[in-house]
Amino acid sequence: MPTYKAPTRDQKFLLHEVLELSRFSELESFQDADPEMIDAILEESAKFAEEVLTPLNRVGDEHGCIRNDDGSVTTPPGFHEAFDQLRQNGWMGLSADTKYGGQGLPGVLGLACGEMTSSANMSFGMYPGLTGGASKAISIGGSDEQKDFYLPKMYTGEWTGTMNLTESHCGTDLGMLKTKAVPQKDGTYKITGEKIFISAGEHGMSDNIIHLVLARIEGGPEGVKGISLFIVPKLKVSKDGSVGDNNGVTCGSIEHKMGIHGNSTCVMVFEDSVGELIGEAHKGLKVMFVMMNEARLGVGMQGLCQSEVSYQNAAIYANDRIQGRSLTGAKNENGPADPIIVHPDVRRMLMDSRAFNEGARAFIYWLALQEDLEKVSPDEKVRERADDYLGLMTPVIKGYITDIGFNNCVNAQQIYGGHGYIEEWGMSQFVRDARIAQIYEGANGIQALDLVGRKLARNGGRALMNISAEIDAYIKENEGNEDLKPFMDGLGDAKAKLQTGTMWLMQNGMSNPDNAGAGSVDYMHMMGIAMLTYMWARMAKTAQAAIDAGSDDPFYADKLITGKYFIARILPNMDSHLAKLQTGAEPVMALAADRF
Amino acid sequence: MPTYKAPTRDQKFLLHEVLELSRFSELESFQDADPEMIDAILEESAKFAEEVLTPLNRVGDEHGCIRNDDGSVTTPPGFHEAFDQLRQNGWMGLSADTKYGGQGLPGVLGLACGEMTSSANMSFGMYPGLTGGASKAISIGGSDEQKDFYLPKMYTGEWTGTMNLTESHCGTDLGMLKTKAVPQKDGTYKITGEKIFISAGEHGMSDNIIHLVLARIEGGPEGVKGISLFIVPKLKVSKDGSVGDNNGVTCGSIEHKMGIHGNSTCVMVFEDSVGELIGEAHKGLKVMFVMMNEARLGVGMQGLCQSEVSYQNAAIYANDRIQGRSLTGAKNENGPADPIIVHPDVRRMLMDSRAFNEGARAFIYWLALQEDLEKVSPDEKVRERADDYLGLMTPVIKGYITDIGFNNCVNAQQIYGGHGYIEEWGMSQFVRDARIAQIYEGANGIQALDLVGRKLARNGGRALMNISAEIDAYIKENEGNEDLKPFMDGLGDAKAKLQTGTMWLMQNGMSNPDNAGAGSVDYMHMMGIAMLTYMWARMAKTAQAAIDAGSDDPFYADKLITGKYFIARILPNMDSHLAKLQTGAEPVMALAADRF
Repeated sequence: MPTYKAPTRDQKFLLHEVLELSRFSELESFQDADPEMIDAILEESAKFAEEVLTPLNRVGDEHGCIRNDDGSVTTPPGFHEAFDQLRQNGWMGLSADTKYGGQGLPGVLGLACGEMTSSANMSFGMYPGLTGGASKAISIGGSDEQKDFYLPKMYTGEWTGTMNLTESHCGTDLGMLKTKAVPQKDGTYKITGEKIFISAGEHGMSDNIIHLVLARIEGGPEGVKGISLFIVPKLKVSKDGSVGDNNGVTCGSIEHKMGIHGNSTCVMVFEDSVGELIGEAHKGLKVMFVMMNEARLGVGMQGLCQSEVSYQNAAIYANDRIQGRSLTGAKNENGPADPIIVHPDVRRMLMDSRAFNEGARAFIYWLALQEDLEKVSPDEKVRERADDYLGLMTPVIKGYITDIGFNNCVNAQQIYGGHGYIEEWGMSQFVRDARIAQIYEGANGIQALDLVGRKLARNGGRALMNISAEIDAYIKENEGNEDLKPFMDGLGDAKAKLQTGTMWLMQNGMSNPDNAGAGSVDYMHMMGIAMLTYMWARMAKTAQAAIDAGSDDPFYADKLITGKYFIARILPNMDSHLAKLQTGAEPVMALAADRF
Repeated sequence: MPTYKAPTRDQKFLLHEVLELSRFSELESFQDADPEMIDAILEESAKFAEEVLTPLNRVGDEHGCIRNDDGSVTTPPGFHEAFDQLRQNGWMGLSADTKYGGQGLPGVLGLACGEMTSSANMSFGMYPGLTGGASKAISIGGSDEQKDFYLPKMYTGEWTGTMNLTESHCGTDLGMLKTKAVPQKDGTYKITGEKIFISAGEHGMSDNIIHLVLARIEGGPEGVKGISLFIVPKLKVSKDGSVGDNNGVTCGSIEHKMGIHGNSTCVMVFEDSVGELIGEAHKGLKVMFVMMNEARLGVGMQGLCQSEVSYQNAAIYANDRIQGRSLTGAKNENGPADPIIVHPDVRRMLMDSRAFNEGARAFIYWLALQEDLEKVSPDEKVRERADDYLGLMTPVIKGYITDIGFNNCVNAQQIYGGHGYIEEWGMSQFVRDARIAQIYEGANGIQALDLVGRKLARNGGRALMNISAEIDAYIKENEGNEDLKPFMDGLGDAKAKLQTGTMWLMQNGMSNPDNAGAGSVDYMHMMGIAMLTYMWARMAKTAQAAIDAGSDDPFYADKLITGKYFIARILPNMDSHLAKLQTGAEPVMALAADRF
């Protein structure tokens, strides 16, 4: 049975020492988040993840969700009880607006807690996760009345939420959606249509489910310009907050999926369901995109989470399992064989994952902090920069981290040999669960296209110019520090190659957009590697400073070792990506479509 | 429901035009294999794979195998009938020795037919596949009496076979095995022990199951030097070939696996089971290794097969599914959206798979031909060279092709978007099935270690020197051919980088074997890429010659396009592998084992 130990030491290192949250203690939402409070929350969240959610992970995979004949859905044993505990302890509103009953703590802290939930039990984490997405949409686009009515119940978890975008014939291309909304005299709409792939679409764990539904108002413009966003509760709601009859919302079936069995993925059928418009008519996508950006950050986190938990288990197994002897002589002389961690190739797989995980954690937390600053900083420049970074880096976090996170799960499974292929050992589940993160919330190819086709050029490329300048300044600032030389050299190298790739895209993407499309995934990975190199340089500096100050905590020495591994053995992936990027569209597009 | 179309056009191209089997028509086993005969066999095999085995693939995944209370195992619906058809049509003995009832055709032709079986239904293909492995062991190491008795029934499929190596505490490290063999007065042995992960270990599709079992004769030497190989039939056999009572062989349980559900993976329990020694006592590994080499070639083929069939389905889907518009303007103006094959990133994933598949097919067929030549060539030099190539390239085919084949399945699934994650679409099954090929028959890390630690240096590095000289000569021979320039340049580049990697290993692997271990998987991939580049150069030459001779078959033009894609976008992976290889053991081994 796989285990999970929350990486609170690393989380504290990032929040306190690298990102130095205490710098922001004057700002709203950071005021109450003093180091002691942060540590207490992390420890409490770790306990819940380790003790309650981890043991339910295999249960969820094995039992899955069952749709009953009456359309209700039964979640895996223990999920309901765990969800009760989650909301009773106030976890769902941790970084939500205090005006609506949230605790108003920084988003980066909420994300750190979300990391533990998702590492322990990805399927379970999606129930509160989707609720967070839906409440985010209401908080962005809803009227005061809507916020007052829905948010308090969603922040406590009394009601949960979902996002209903996809239809069977359209996922990426929402302009083709067919769900229709018919205006009623009382200002509401009647929603009719069928949505697929609705995570947490139906279950019995909350008193109501608030579906956020994309639909086209009858007579509205064609394509994406005629899409509106609606609040459609599963059960009809009264002004006093009580719930009534079913609102014409039923779960038609649930999907039999490769993984995340513990989460109910539903076909949702809406038949004359009463819905409230959020924001302006025909402008639903605008709200949806803001919310999706946040969801994408969460999905990137899922990639890290499965990578982290699979790494932890593989590391334990590699220390336990004895098989063969070290190439440099027996290391376990009194035993019949050495533990397989003596083998360099086993180490390679473990270090690939570890160096990625620690870098990816820093990258995600760093961006989550930008999101906080974008909200609460009094400095307009800081807010602008943070918003730029959020735009540019969200697709990178979603695409790059879920791609590599999945690969790391595969390698962790590989370390188990034949046992890794047997379901009861749990390593297959990590692979199967991690796989969805590359697909949903915009497949990774869409993320790459969003990056090169939209985000890169926004505001005249300001975001990339800013991060480049920030990196240059950082390298300059640390020039001459011999201990940090490998990191600064690596960072300079990464930045130069990213720049070469960017230049190539600029020079060739205009003349033929397919040049940008053909290199988009390579470019996304280059930016991911470059950003992790930057994060490693920053973490190395912090760790080195702690050592220089006399700390003998082996955590810091390990951090430097792991960072040097990243520079030596992950950074070189830039070379191949750059070479491929520069071949452009021609080799990719040469074969006629009907000859495939 | 996924489909499969056997790539007979490509197979014929390889057998007739690239490998030119007709050159060997004077040799045993090639005599009957004239082009018409080969084509007829390929077409017949294709029909069986497409029409009978393909529809059973999802059935096998959904139903799996069931162990009944009496220890018998029920295979998925339709498997038994299909197996009857397979053996009635004589497929199992296609390239087996005529002396024992086989048809004596070239092994490379048998492998081409095996490709179709495994692409159509990997789980099904393992029943005849394992039988082939077991009969191979008997043909290598058995006495004349054993061969006379067992082989005819196995070549017809009346009896099937298995390989029993692994025990729960030892997979890679067979020296630790505990199954014991006690000599009996009549020259037989009583075998007692428990084996795990036994593919096709129990089922009702044949009259008997011939288990090949590794065990230690009581009092024999410790470690790998005391391991013997035994024939242990499931049912006791009489001299007249009739079968009797159970031989103390039972299936204790079957595994719940990530994939290949249609194949029964058994825990096999032997209790005083009567066994016959194969070959010499304590020298069972020698026979086992010869047989394993052949099995590894078959597993490499499985990697290609899942990559091929998943590619085919993704290509169909990409032409059918409409979503969004081409970056260069609508391509399906009258429809609501363009088929997703217009998107460069979708093409990239398809072309990555296609260029790999065609190259890998050439590589495997080329090596299978070496195996034939090693057996039947009258020229000692040819036989020696063929044997060298088999030794050197088998781990590359097993490790490199299954690694990349798996990645291609993941990409094919990705092309389906959310539907790829839903089991009924079948793309998940390709990923789950392909995954085992990286693990069994020696995990890919073991293949890499076999390559750098054993095969590379064998006979003073003769095999690598020979293939290098062959490549050099090939480049020289085609100098000045402008049409082939990209291929010859690419081949020169690949060969030079492989050489640099080899030199690095030679210079650094002796002083510290962990340097070789740390770079072993990178090196294996480099050799795989270099060999596929060589194969592409040869295929390009053949295709170009056909075009120059006036052929207007678009097959040849597509071949050149696909080959150029390989050079442009797959060959650059060499760069990253080489850079990582050259970082050596230090970054990999620096972290203390207990700090993982």
